[in-house]
This record gives sequence, C-alpha cells and structure tokens, in this order.
Amino acid sequence: MTVATAHTTPSTASAQRRVSVLGATGSIGLNTLDLIGRDSAAYDVVALTANRNAEALARLAIAHRAETAVVADESQYEALKAALSGSGVEAAAGLQAVVDAAAQPADWIMAAITGAAGLRPTFEAAAQGTRIALANKECLVSAGEVFMAAVASAGTMLLPVDSEHSGAFQAIDDGSADGIERIVLTASGGPFRDWPMDRLAAATPEQALQHPNWSMGAKITVDSATLMNKGLELIEAYHLFPVAPEQLGVVIHPQSILHCLVEYADGSVIAQLSCPDMRTPIAYSLTWPNRMQTPTERLDLAKLGQLTFETPDVARFPALRIAQDALAAGGCAPTVLNAADEVAVDAYLQGRIGFASIPALVEATLDASEQSVGRHLPSTLDDVLEIDYAGRALALSLLPKFNKT
Amino acid sequence: MTVATAHTTPSTASAQRRVSVLGATGSIGLNTLDLIGRDSAAYDVVALTANRNAEALARLAIAHRAETAVVADESQYEALKAALSGSGVEAAAGLQAVVDAAAQPADWIMAAITGAAGLRPTFEAAAQGTRIALANKECLVSAGEVFMAAVASAGTMLLPVDSEHSGAFQAIDDGSADGIERIVLTASGGPFRDWPMDRLAAATPEQALQHPNWSMGAKITVDSATLMNKGLELIEAYHLFPVAPEQLGVVIHPQSILHCLVEYADGSVIAQLSCPDMRTPIAYSLTWPNRMQTPTERLDLAKLGQLTFETPDVARFPALRIAQDALAAGGCAPTVLNAADEVAVDAYLQGRIGFASIPALVEATLDASEQSVGRHLPSTLDDVLEIDYAGRALALSLLPKFNKT
Repeated sequence: MTVATAHTTPSTASAQRRVSVLGATGSIGLNTLDLIGRDSAAYDVVALTANRNAEALARLAIAHRAETAVVADESQYEALKAALSGSGVEAAAGLQAVVDAAAQPADWIMAAITGAAGLRPTFEAAAQGTRIALANKECLVSAGEVFMAAVASAGTMLLPVDSEHSGAFQAIDDGSADGIERIVLTASGGPFRDWPMDRLAAATPEQALQHPNWSMGAKITVDSATLMNKGLELIEAYHLFPVAPEQLGVVIHPQSILHCLVEYADGSVIAQLSCPDMRTPIAYSLTWPNRMQTPTERLDLAKLGQLTFETPDVARFPALRIAQDALAAGGCAPTVLNAADEVAVDAYLQGRIGFASIPALVEATLDASEQSVGRHLPSTLDDVLEIDYAGRALALSLLPKFNKT
Repeated sequence: MTVATAHTTPSTASAQRRVSVLGATGSIGLNTLDLIGRDSAAYDVVALTANRNAEALARLAIAHRAETAVVADESQYEALKAALSGSGVEAAAGLQAVVDAAAQPADWIMAAITGAAGLRPTFEAAAQGTRIALANKECLVSAGEVFMAAVASAGTMLLPVDSEHSGAFQAIDDGSADGIERIVLTASGGPFRDWPMDRLAAATPEQALQHPNWSMGAKITVDSATLMNKGLELIEAYHLFPVAPEQLGVVIHPQSILHCLVEYADGSVIAQLSCPDMRTPIAYSLTWPNRMQTPTERLDLAKLGQLTFETPDVARFPALRIAQDALAAGGCAPTVLNAADEVAVDAYLQGRIGFASIPALVEATLDASEQSVGRHLPSTLDDVLEIDYAGRALALSLLPKFNKT
C-alpha cells in the first residue's frame, strides 16, 4: 500500500478553493469535475480517488492538475503510476490511501464513493471539518446517527447532493427551519409504476434497469423500481432535516421535475424543480450559498405542459413501507435494511430471486434480526460495520427460501 | 376632520407586537384580523382603518381591542363614534386621519387600502420605518421608484402580500439574490383563457367577474380576465426583486396552486405553492421570518393529480404585452398604464366599452401620453399623483373613440 502524502506545492493563489473528489470516475465525480473544469482558475484540486479504473483516474488527475490520485484497488497502483509518469501528480493506492486522501486539508470534498466503501473516507473528511458534498447514501442510511454526531462534533457543513435532498436543502435554506410541517420527496415511480401486481412479480432485471428519467448504476436503478430507493432517501432526509419520521412523505411524480416539497405550518409549500441533470444539485453544493452558471437545460413548464402526481401504492411497492417501518423502529433497523437490500438486489440481478422477493427478503431479514442482531443503536462506525456484516450474513442465510424454483 | 391621537394606554405587555391594519374591512384586512385574532395575546392592535363602512369597522375595532378606528369618509364619523361609544376605542375620520393612523408607532402595518387612496397612508408608514405588509398595488405600479426610494431611505422592511410576490419572496428568502436568472409569475388565465378572439370581444362584465380560483374585487377580477393584472404584477415584481424587466416572465397555470418560480443560473428553480387562501401569504408577512400555524387547507398534490402550464397568448390578451412594454419604457409609463386601466375597466363595467377595448384604450392612452405627459420619471408622490391624474384625463378624453355603437 502506498500512502498519499500531503501536497508538496502549496497553492500560491490563496483565493483558490482546495477541493477533492472521492469517486472521481463515477457519474457524480465526472459531473463534479465537469463543473470544476468550467471555472478551473477558482479551484485547486487536491485529491481524486477511484475504485479501480486507473487509466480514467489518471486522465482526470492530469486534466485537472490534481496533487494526488488514489486508486482503491492496490493491484492498479503500477498502472496508475505509469499513467501519471512525468505529470507531477502523485500516485497512491489502497483503502487507507483513500482515507488519507479524504483527510487532506481541503475547503470542499465531494463524497461520491458508492456503497459501504464510502463510509471510512467520508467519516474521515467529516472529522477534519471539511465542507462535505454528500452523495454517498450509506453514511446516512446505515450510519446516520453516528455520522451526524461526527459532523456535529467537528462543525462540518454538510451539503446534500441527491436531487431530492438538495431540493429540500434549497427550499429550507433561509437559515431557519421554523414551522416545517412535512417534507415530501417525489419519486418517479420507476419503470413499473403502472404494472399490476402479477406482472410485477415477473419483472426481469433487464426491465428493472430501464429507468425512465435518470441514468444511474444497477443497484440504485433496481432500488428505484422497487421504491426502496425512496425509502432509503426518507431515512437520509430524517438525518439531514429537523423532522420526525412521521413528518416525511413521498408522492409519485413521473416527470422527475419537482424534486422535493417542504410544507410549512402556514399552508405554504416551497418546492425545488429542475430538469434531470445532476450538475444542478452538484453545482449548488459546490458554490453554496452562491449559485454558479451551469450549461444545464433550463426548465420550461409551458413546454412540459403538465406535472402529474399520485399516491404511492405500497401494496405493489412494499419496500417503501418496509423502509418507513425501519426508520420508525430506529436503532440498527436502517443498517440491517440497507445490508439486506444490497444482498436482495444482488440476488435479483443474478437471477436467483424474483422482483417481489426483494422486499420480501429485506423484510424477513429485518424480522429475523430482532432476535439475532437486536435493535441497539450503533454508536461507532465499527458498530455500524459489524451490524452491516451481520445483516448481510442474515440475508444470505435467508436467501434460499426466496430462490426461484 | 378628526385627527387620531396617539394611543393613550401604553401596552404593559412589552412582548406584544403593535400592529395596524389599513383597509381593515376589505378581504385582506379581514383575513389579517382573522390571523391576529388566533393569537391575540401576541398583538396589540393600534389602528384599524376603513373607507366608509363604520359599522363593520367598529365591530372589528371592538373585537380586537384596537386603540383607534379611522373611517376615511368623514360623513361616517358620527356613525363610527356612536358604534364605538363606551368601548374605549378612539374614533377618527377623514383622509388625513387615515394618514395619521399609518404614522402611529407600530411594529407592523398591513397596507391593504385599494387604489390610489392607499398611496399617502402607505408612504407615511414607509417613512416611519414601520415594517410594511404590502397589499396595495399602486405604491409599486404607479409610484414604484418613489416608493422604493422612500422605503430604502427609512430602512423599512417590505413584505409583499400578493400571492405571487409573497411566493417569490419566500423562494428567494435566503438572504441572497445571487444567481437569479428569471422570476416567473403564474396566471390562472382568467375565465376567458380558452375563448377564441371573436368570443372574447363580446365578453360581458358578468362573465368577466367569474374568476375561477379567487374571490376578489371587480377591478382586479376584470384585470385578471384581460391579464392586465399579471402585467401590473410584473411591474410590482420589478420593484420588489433585483431583476431587469427582461428577466420577468409569466406562465399560465389554471389551477393557481404554484404561484411563482425563481430560476437560478445553475438550472435550479425554487417555487412556492399553496391552496388559494390569502391567509397563507398574509401569515408569512405577519410572522416573517417565522411561520405561524394557519387553518388553511393543506396542499395535496396527489389529490390534485396534475398541475398544468401554458404560454400566455398575447394576441388574445394584449394587456400583458402592453404592461411589459410600459415596464420596459419606464419613466411615467407604468403610472399612465395604471391610470388608463382604471378608466378602461370602469367604462367596461358600466357597459360603455367592449372587453377588447380595455387594452386598446390603455395602449392608445400610453401612445398619446408620450406627447402630452412626456416620459419623465416621477420623483415625488405629488409628481405621481399629477401624472396619474393626467393619465386618467387623457384616457377619459380618448374613451368616446372606443364607445360601443
């Protein structure tokens, strides 16, 4: 393992903002660097990290004159080093190097490593007090209480990047959360929004991967089809905003234009809308409290003609109810929910279980975990990882019951 | 004329906010007092004013334990005095008494006198630095530059009450107007939204007075049918928010749920929505920056099902274009526009001119005024009143050309 060193050439232009991107080669990372590149004189890129694509990482690091490029997969170290040869960009590899990259002094960091792998680096950035643009879901879903405690203790400013949470943050962003009655996230309803129950049960992974509005990874696209993704977002919203679980709601909005509604005690509702382009919420996290110019398509409601809304059908999409129950139960239930869902979606994508078995396996795991794992609230990141591991093991042990015949 | 005196019994509960309502017996005034009455311990009602309904005014003044009640119509003084007899509420009458009521020390004042009659009292409140909830349109449409200069010079906080402007204010309300690209007000489209041109020309006052969503006075309801009201609101928005005329737009939205869109440079749009109930924007103006509980109907998008949007048709509704032109022309054009529109709507309601002649008379007046009135920007309220008078006279002189045959 090679440890990234602190930057060797201090920035001379002190007005430049020092920024790092964890997960630079993913969709969020690329969009972030697209925006940074449009105003490159304003930024000093400290560290870029990627999971294993050394070549893409090196290209980005050179283009953005990063100080350090870190690949998590140590087997890619030599490839990264070779690709960066003569560029002046320092190469590093390994999980600890990614954590070290997150710890490098910076003014802003994009935390866009997907999955549990994003936990340690994002916690590290939070501990430094670095302003965090948060795209990793696990920090809030699996480790919500622990993560928010770390954020509060370091005085870290957290800027959500998910379009729904960025929308709520923008709607609330008047320095006061006074009088919030409800926060309602919208859901596209996914590709199976209109499907009857029997057809849903037979939905194939290929069908589930056709998201109507957003192009995303396989896991999150399947989660959108089951509505589990919206359930996970409710858990995130609970930690990000000053609301109780029962003050959070979901409305189906197939056009994915209106992302979030914040409802106030006086009957007023503030909503955030935009064309589906992740650069809009990323830009807000980057330049908050100011706004930068982006080349994103502008919203034209007259051209769209209509925005439609429906109540989510939890009979056909029980994942939403299961996630809400886990949020209400609290303790380690959200951690187990997230772990079981990863196992279930993986099994579905492998063709081992049917679509309707995804929520069924998650619920069975949650039920069984009350006995085996208990309900205690994790108090450290290691606690979270232990419960996450136990949740996965439990889901895997229950999986055969749901196997296709 | 009887001059209102300063309050004689100083409030003992210093935490109470001293509030006055100009135009207490109108729809905005009644809704304001409804809200104040729900938390009456928090408010000390200083002065209530009305145009001529002494009986209703006296009832409100007694119910809200006002210090003073002022009726503008001096002939109603005895009636008011009699109705207040023994109540401890001081009675006053006359236009100057209304201005004096506006000048009484208060923490907050609702400026809801309609028409030109609202100018002097609202200017007086602005000069005192009293926080103003502004429902009078003329201060901004006829006297925009002069009024905003008075507001700025006294450090007065201005809170718009119109649902569209309150919506924009709420959407922007993060202490920063950075990156605003456009502000778009919605218009219901009025009762003639779908009417073809020939049918429009024959629209009767009875038909024009059927507003689909709001119950308002005759003048504003006809203005909603011609879309002149939205044009006047664009002029108001220009003075309230940091935008150029070309950054203001209108979109037709028949449901009147979404009131305003603020579009930012990063592609994000913040909108304000609510069920049509004036108590929501009034409540925000009353408790800003906090939110009070109101009994208004809560927005349920899933129940509504859809929100629709269309581009306004300026061929059928030229008033919108005429108002936009007047805003772009600047100087005294908005003052003349407002004066001519009052004459035109009045003539229409009297059956003297047809519906299509409303914008035609306004435009003819604006054209003729370039010669007779000029285009200079009014610099005092007296200037404004002089131009307003000249505009009315000019419109009346042109009226016979538009008379029905």
